[in-house]
Amino acid sequence: MTKGEDTKQAILERASQLASRIGLETLTIGRLATEMGLSKSGLFSHFGSKEALEVQVLEFTAQDYRAKVVVPAFQMKPGLPRIQALFDNWLDWVTINTQEGGCLFVQAATELDDRPGMPRDYMEKWQQLWFETLAEAARRAINEGHLRADLDCDQFAFQFNAILFGYHNSQRMLKDPRAEGYARAAIAGLLAHSRA
Amino acid sequence: MTKGEDTKQAILERASQLASRIGLETLTIGRLATEMGLSKSGLFSHFGSKEALEVQVLEFTAQDYRAKVVVPAFQMKPGLPRIQALFDNWLDWVTINTQEGGCLFVQAATELDDRPGMPRDYMEKWQQLWFETLAEAARRAINEGHLRADLDCDQFAFQFNAILFGYHNSQRMLKDPRAEGYARAAIAGLLAHSRA
Repeated sequence: MTKGEDTKQAILERASQLASRIGLETLTIGRLATEMGLSKSGLFSHFGSKEALEVQVLEFTAQDYRAKVVVPAFQMKPGLPRIQALFDNWLDWVTINTQEGGCLFVQAATELDDRPGMPRDYMEKWQQLWFETLAEAARRAINEGHLRADLDCDQFAFQFNAILFGYHNSQRMLKDPRAEGYARAAIAGLLAHSRA
Repeated sequence: MTKGEDTKQAILERASQLASRIGLETLTIGRLATEMGLSKSGLFSHFGSKEALEVQVLEFTAQDYRAKVVVPAFQMKPGLPRIQALFDNWLDWVTINTQEGGCLFVQAATELDDRPGMPRDYMEKWQQLWFETLAEAARRAINEGHLRADLDCDQFAFQFNAILFGYHNSQRMLKDPRAEGYARAAIAGLLAHSRA
């Protein structure tokens, strides 16, 4: 990686954390420049437009998510261990990001749903990929004989993901000390009712 | 109601719809004035500050939610009919608001979690009340013999609410035609596994 690329990665990391707290809309090149003590024109030369910045922040977050949540889970044995790892890794990922705004994708999903443009297009594709990843993990669990053959894997993905949204809300908005317990029990219930 | 109060209610209704689409942060008195063809100073005299506007928009939405979602459900027989009505009414409420940004509370829950202040305090109290309403409906269903006596009613409320978040995302971000089906099946599953 060149020094310029290193700098850009560092900017994107900071921007991703900041966006999870203040939202993508509020993340302007000017605000990011102030936050990082860099010149606005320098940042502008890296990204070109606010929309491009938003998309690159989402791409950076997706790479991080893939590396910390998805890849280590798919290194686990297929079936229930892999599904449990997807949940545990996601929880770790949100916890690491807790000092800032939690999971940028939860933030961006509600923020971008009504805002057409490249960031929304990126986010929609990313979410479809995430649901497909969850459904694929469920299909492999059926093949392993861990989950029942007639399980609707898309329904499973919907419910798994809904629990993550619920956790994020109870943890961050309500600061409910039982949030993690609720989410773990809900995932355990989903797996129990999906079992072969 | 005086003419001034009528005007204020009309402004709050429009502001509530607008905020569900663009977010509370972006809902400035200036933007609302432009949107409604009113003077900024006139609007300022109604609300006094942006923070007061945000709180009153949340209060207006809470009244609307109470009237359309909670009160009609609590007019239903206690137990499963009431719980099902809470879900059906919520779905109707989101559908009515679909031309704008869906459910303002789903939007505000992610937007405000990291933004301390009066709007966040209001939202937190409102959400606690909503979870308490769901848990209370579950407790009544236990008393009616519809749900099992050892059901954790707070866990039930967490899971019920998580399904609403999941629906909102699949419907609005992914525009998934199966969103309602997923949510209905998830609620039916939750009730089936909570049954006496």
